Amino acid sequence: AAHRGNLLAEACPSREVLKHVTSRWGVLVLMVLETGTHRFSELRRSIGGVSEKMLAQTLQWLESDGLVERIAYDVVPPHVDYSLTPLGLEAAEKVRQLSDWIEVNLPRVMAAQSGKAA
Amino acid sequence: AAHRGNLLAEACPSREVLKHVTSRWGVLVLMVLETGTHRFSELRRSIGGVSEKMLAQTLQWLESDGLVERIAYDVVPPHVDYSLTPLGLEAAEKVRQLSDWIEVNLPRVMAAQSGKAA
Repeated sequence: AAHRGNLLAEACPSREVLKHVTSRWGVLVLMVLETGTHRFSELRRSIGGVSEKMLAQTLQWLESDGLVERIAYDVVPPHVDYSLTPLGLEAAEKVRQLSDWIEVNLPRVMAAQSGKAA
Repeated sequence: AAHRGNLLAEACPSREVLKHVTSRWGVLVLMVLETGTHRFSELRRSIGGVSEKMLAQTLQWLESDGLVERIAYDVVPPHVDYSLTPLGLEAAEKVRQLSDWIEVNLPRVMAAQSGKAA
């Protein structure tokens, strides 16, 4: 049976998965896809500041990790849908719990940053 | 009252906090400090592959966000302890839930990467 990973070990392949899932855009893509299937252009509009290139790269990482499913319809103009796999849904839930925490606690962090108690 | 952040908005300061907490070494530092207070050298030994410079940078980010507390003892040789603040403990818990998920599910991700069903 395959063993669980160990993120503290430099050579463990879990490090690469962590990199993809917690990448600047990976977190945000997982957050948006957790709400349902999206087209590439919808994802791009939803995520402020992401470039076409970085979004495509991020989706490719997540697809190759088995977290995102890409369905291309053979129509003109091209229509490509992205959604989470069951594995991706699980990962997205953990990511959302972290991102929710950050959003909710931003005032406390900003108070710390400015040297005041939260 | 301060408002919650919105990670999907490009200009929201929550993006910076996300960057620190999910940085390559930020995740691992939070994981290790969740187990208790550590000295710099202990952190460095626990986290495979981290350089002195990157560890110092990561700790500085997390300290300025109010997540990590640094206590320097005025002794020779220098003795500096790092521990999580109550805010940092909350963040570390969310991070650990994500990193646990990655470690446990690594075999499923690797199966997907090699094109086999998990």
